[in-house]
Amino acid sequence: MLIGASMGFCLPFAFPALANRTYLPAASAFESQAAYGLLLSMTISIVSGAILWLSGRRHRGGPLYQKEAMAIVGLSWVMATILGALPYYLSGTQIAANEPITFIEAMFESQSGFSTTGATVLTDLETPGLVPHCILFWRSWTHFLGGLGIVVLFVAILGQGSAGKAMMRAEMPGPTKEGSMARMQHTALVFAAIYIGLNLILTVIYALEGMSLFDSMCHAFGTMATGGFSTYNRSLGRFESVTIEYTTVLFMILAGTNFTILYLTLLRGPQALFRDIEFRTYIGFIAVASVGIVFFGMRAGDVGFGNIFDSSRNALFQVVSIMTTTGYGTADFDKWNNFGRGALLLLMFVGGCAGSTGGGLKVIRHVLFYKILRHEIEKAHRPRVVRLLRVGGSTVDDPNIAHGIVVYFSIILAIFVFSWLTLITFEPSSTWGVVTEQTIAQYEEKQPEEAVERIEKSKQEISELMNEGTIDEKLLDCASAVAATLNNIGPGLGVVGATQNYARFSQGAKLLFVWLMMLGRVEVFSVLVLVFPSFWRRI
Amino acid sequence: MLIGASMGFCLPFAFPALANRTYLPAASAFESQAAYGLLLSMTISIVSGAILWLSGRRHRGGPLYQKEAMAIVGLSWVMATILGALPYYLSGTQIAANEPITFIEAMFESQSGFSTTGATVLTDLETPGLVPHCILFWRSWTHFLGGLGIVVLFVAILGQGSAGKAMMRAEMPGPTKEGSMARMQHTALVFAAIYIGLNLILTVIYALEGMSLFDSMCHAFGTMATGGFSTYNRSLGRFESVTIEYTTVLFMILAGTNFTILYLTLLRGPQALFRDIEFRTYIGFIAVASVGIVFFGMRAGDVGFGNIFDSSRNALFQVVSIMTTTGYGTADFDKWNNFGRGALLLLMFVGGCAGSTGGGLKVIRHVLFYKILRHEIEKAHRPRVVRLLRVGGSTVDDPNIAHGIVVYFSIILAIFVFSWLTLITFEPSSTWGVVTEQTIAQYEEKQPEEAVERIEKSKQEISELMNEGTIDEKLLDCASAVAATLNNIGPGLGVVGATQNYARFSQGAKLLFVWLMMLGRVEVFSVLVLVFPSFWRRI
Repeated sequence: MLIGASMGFCLPFAFPALANRTYLPAASAFESQAAYGLLLSMTISIVSGAILWLSGRRHRGGPLYQKEAMAIVGLSWVMATILGALPYYLSGTQIAANEPITFIEAMFESQSGFSTTGATVLTDLETPGLVPHCILFWRSWTHFLGGLGIVVLFVAILGQGSAGKAMMRAEMPGPTKEGSMARMQHTALVFAAIYIGLNLILTVIYALEGMSLFDSMCHAFGTMATGGFSTYNRSLGRFESVTIEYTTVLFMILAGTNFTILYLTLLRGPQALFRDIEFRTYIGFIAVASVGIVFFGMRAGDVGFGNIFDSSRNALFQVVSIMTTTGYGTADFDKWNNFGRGALLLLMFVGGCAGSTGGGLKVIRHVLFYKILRHEIEKAHRPRVVRLLRVGGSTVDDPNIAHGIVVYFSIILAIFVFSWLTLITFEPSSTWGVVTEQTIAQYEEKQPEEAVERIEKSKQEISELMNEGTIDEKLLDCASAVAATLNNIGPGLGVVGATQNYARFSQGAKLLFVWLMMLGRVEVFSVLVLVFPSFWRRI
Repeated sequence: MLIGASMGFCLPFAFPALANRTYLPAASAFESQAAYGLLLSMTISIVSGAILWLSGRRHRGGPLYQKEAMAIVGLSWVMATILGALPYYLSGTQIAANEPITFIEAMFESQSGFSTTGATVLTDLETPGLVPHCILFWRSWTHFLGGLGIVVLFVAILGQGSAGKAMMRAEMPGPTKEGSMARMQHTALVFAAIYIGLNLILTVIYALEGMSLFDSMCHAFGTMATGGFSTYNRSLGRFESVTIEYTTVLFMILAGTNFTILYLTLLRGPQALFRDIEFRTYIGFIAVASVGIVFFGMRAGDVGFGNIFDSSRNALFQVVSIMTTTGYGTADFDKWNNFGRGALLLLMFVGGCAGSTGGGLKVIRHVLFYKILRHEIEKAHRPRVVRLLRVGGSTVDDPNIAHGIVVYFSIILAIFVFSWLTLITFEPSSTWGVVTEQTIAQYEEKQPEEAVERIEKSKQEISELMNEGTIDEKLLDCASAVAATLNNIGPGLGVVGATQNYARFSQGAKLLFVWLMMLGRVEVFSVLVLVFPSFWRRI
């Protein structure tokens, strides 16, 4: 059983080495200190990877059970998160002035990168001396690796649900008819090539549009992995370039498209795209949501909705960014009207297409879910009519698919609800700027000269809080934070809104988010089984 | 096809007549005018009922299909709502000073009564001249009728899901073994007897505890139907009596218990209660939630959580009230800490036991849902182990039950999400006390002398709104309002909180709530099919 597990372990460990070789511009003393940190992380990663690989080699040869494969995926992800956190922790990164990053925060940033979420605890990316350049690159590089891992591991090798696999079996042409192993390797190579190719193309386009090479690479990684880490505090909005925004929209849409469909499009032309019901629904969702947001945004006179061009651009960008689970921001959508905010909150649960780097629930699950519901309602009043579940012309013959999808939705809902309840219960109100006696003490310790004035102001806030009992924002913001991490998006509403970040949350909450991002990315099952004791019993 | 439908129609029409005969105390001129209104409503109801009954009689004799039965239930409910609204509308009831009730608001109140929700648009029940006494009684009487209809129609005749029916088949003893029709009639009679008996007992107890006969009857109806209409603005909290509160808790728990189990308990003693897994889970939910709320309430120092006795009483009362979907209030739980509020919001989705007057999703669905999830997760990592779904020792043999429950959860979720989005989009912000230009104009028209001062104040509020963009409460309050109506509870959070009501919502929103209460009560399917065109095609 160890065989496969250890081989899986080796995979993520080679990566930090790559990152270092690619970029090591240790300029100032701060940067060179950071580079030493990176080098140290790299050494630790390589050594631990080598040990595992060696111990794994001795056991090579046994067959790989489904259970083992799931354990490998889950455990490698945990190891990758921990090793990926080392560079942040060892390089002296600070989340704000005089606040060195904790290991939990480093894990948050690492998990956010690998799972292509794009949520961050770093409040200031631009002030020199807080976040070293090599760490900024490492951050974006984890997106690239995460995206590559998803495309190769989940999409090509483990397959994205039976629907995707069945489609691949049926439609995939080419020379690889001999065996499933060879075909899998071929598919993985093709997908990796498409992914890397799109990254390269986007980097060149960004560079032509005026970004530096460093920015081009980082933003290309963030876009194609549907991650959303930027190198600027204002995210992509910093460039204030219509061309860059539309380029990003196009590539986010591509990144959220099923790679099988992209491959077929390369082979046979664009009609393959529009014959696919998932892609049609995906584009449909984007179009309907954008039009709705433009309409209600202009009606309410929101910021950025002055004329039809600005409105369309802002609405389209934000809809695509949230729905593909990228999470780049150009407008502060938290200040939009309630329809806009509500619609974006719901779009968080849509996600990209299956077989893409996009996270979330995936469009195909919604398509099937809708069909299942219609099917059941028809069955309720016409019990004698037998009808088969059809997706895009072909019948879904396995009844377990339908069942599995509904169960998946329910599990996501259950995780969502319990995380939310945990968060609203244990997260202190100080996260929402409400000052309690505890935070006053902390504040006095840190900045005694400013404390007096602040305390006067906060006494009032406390008494207001006592009168009001609770803060309504908290319930909503926590819900959006859970949604944004569980669906690998990044920004949410309010305290984690477009212009905000996750720094203010307590360490415990950050650890919860790390867990949620992982659950969201590996699609729940393979992580969930790890915590069920019966999983560890030998059959 | 008309046969059954018209017979069903007659049922609710006989009821207003009953109500009038029971109570007609037309004291003042206002009350006697109201009585004329009631008399007129009664006449209309009886005449329309008679016409339908006569037209139905001519078609008598055909068999009743499932589809027809569903149509009857759905359509009778619609007719009952409309006819039940007449007394409010024709009696000159006012929802606040100088604001006569609209027909939509009357329908809201009527639906809220029949569906045993207990949400109200009447802001002041105590000031003379606003709500006549006979209307107050009619309000509570609709609870009684709604509860009776549920017990007889849904529980005894249509059956509450196959699980309940199977249990009944297996365990129901007695002389009715001959045929299903006779047994159904017997069951309906027994259940109706239990229901009416409990109502009588509770009325007597309340009267002994110091309520007037009028109050005793109204509150007994509200408790046993898990409705929640009171005759006072402060609901049951007005009596400030520990005895009354604990009595109410006990009877709310009974009302939320499966009537089959209550019947078995009467026959065989209380061990039947605790052998039932649904009842055990139901009590478990109440206990765990109460303990949690006591703990976090005392930690946060909430109002009413001064000592352990007050805390337990307040927590237990509110948990039982919300979970059984009654909705009586003794404490303003909207001012509790976030755990308390969040937990109550979640309990709204639990509901009572199947086969009780309680609404919501029902405890048995949660039990089965949990078992299905565990089952699926086990299947994911141990695909070779075949395991049957068991509930309380007996195997659930029908795979459709498991499927149906998950689909039901999903439909509720879908309805919840779309209603919420509709509400946050179209409900004007003025509902949340934010004054817009539109409301200023309305206000000036109504009370010109006060308008000037108010406008000054509201100018500031508008500019604040412009700066903040949106109000966070709105997203949360709307969610709680949808949850409270869809699950037939009554009060929610914030603008519809324990001390508030639904009067401030726009007419359109009220109509949406009417629809949601109906959907929640008839358990979705039978109403949903009405709007699907294929339902109306003849087979």
